[in-house]
Amino acid sequence: MSSGLRKQFEEFIELTNAEFDYILSHFQVKKFKKHAIIIQPGDAVYLEYFVEKGLLKTFTIDNDGKEYILQFAMENWWVSDYQAYQTGERAIYTIQCLEDVELLCLSQQDRNKLYEEMPKFERFARLKVTSGFLHTQKRVMALLQNDTLSRYKQLLEQYPSLFQRVPKSMIAAYLGVSRETLSRLQI
Amino acid sequence: MSSGLRKQFEEFIELTNAEFDYILSHFQVKKFKKHAIIIQPGDAVYLEYFVEKGLLKTFTIDNDGKEYILQFAMENWWVSDYQAYQTGERAIYTIQCLEDVELLCLSQQDRNKLYEEMPKFERFARLKVTSGFLHTQKRVMALLQNDTLSRYKQLLEQYPSLFQRVPKSMIAAYLGVSRETLSRLQI
Repeated sequence: MSSGLRKQFEEFIELTNAEFDYILSHFQVKKFKKHAIIIQPGDAVYLEYFVEKGLLKTFTIDNDGKEYILQFAMENWWVSDYQAYQTGERAIYTIQCLEDVELLCLSQQDRNKLYEEMPKFERFARLKVTSGFLHTQKRVMALLQNDTLSRYKQLLEQYPSLFQRVPKSMIAAYLGVSRETLSRLQI
Repeated sequence: MSSGLRKQFEEFIELTNAEFDYILSHFQVKKFKKHAIIIQPGDAVYLEYFVEKGLLKTFTIDNDGKEYILQFAMENWWVSDYQAYQTGERAIYTIQCLEDVELLCLSQQDRNKLYEEMPKFERFARLKVTSGFLHTQKRVMALLQNDTLSRYKQLLEQYPSLFQRVPKSMIAAYLGVSRETLSRLQI
């Protein structure tokens, strides 16, 4: 267990076994069944989640019942309502399990403790959020250009197995297009 | 000079005068005239820029000559082609001065040196990029929801003086709508 987490740390920083075990000791394991909701609008958000197994979505629903997906999270992805987690504001998103999931949970408090104790953990965090920022900028540009195909390809690249795991309606809700437009791409 | 930079650091971390002066000693001042292009597609990008004075835009132009604006940068904003700056890839964006500008420039090499020497500078960087990530996520959600008014309000909040400083066609190119749609908002 947690080999995915270790591998991800080591993309950015070097860790001894003892250092990794120490970081890992701050995580809690949680398991949820398919359909479970782990964060909903209005929640205070103390935890972020590293996905060991399974798939989740972060989404919002507008007044007309239309769904918009901010993020999918599958194995080796991090997920939370980050605005709430970072700032102490209440959650605005729903995060729901699309499969049975196993999560490693880290509290904001333990995260801050690790930053104080291990500057390289803060380096990992900086590089990881930078990578998220760059991905999100690319998604903005593809949305501005109304370039569905490039958004589709970007999604496929980020989550290669996603298309076998979720219905096309959710892919459309992530891309910001109708189910029909997605079908017309014929891909 | 550079009081804006100091104020921004101090939103996130505490700094003595000596520490601030040391950080500042790694920045170079550069001035450019209105219309100057400081980064263009294909460039290697070694610098990021803190705007002391003036206004810039980061944009791309598609094959039909249509402009898409990823970012404006005015006083106290950072700007670069961050994908290129972070990864060593070539620039894909153009960054152009919309007014005469004064910039404080920091190289990737000096930035990394400062991280090694001052962990709190890395903390500042982590918190700053996290804030950029959260803003960019909000913009994605507003684009997905096709909610021009909320994107407009978000822009106004981020850059209150922008609307006095750039033509409406550029606001439209940032929001991803036509000039006509923008006018119909009647705001």
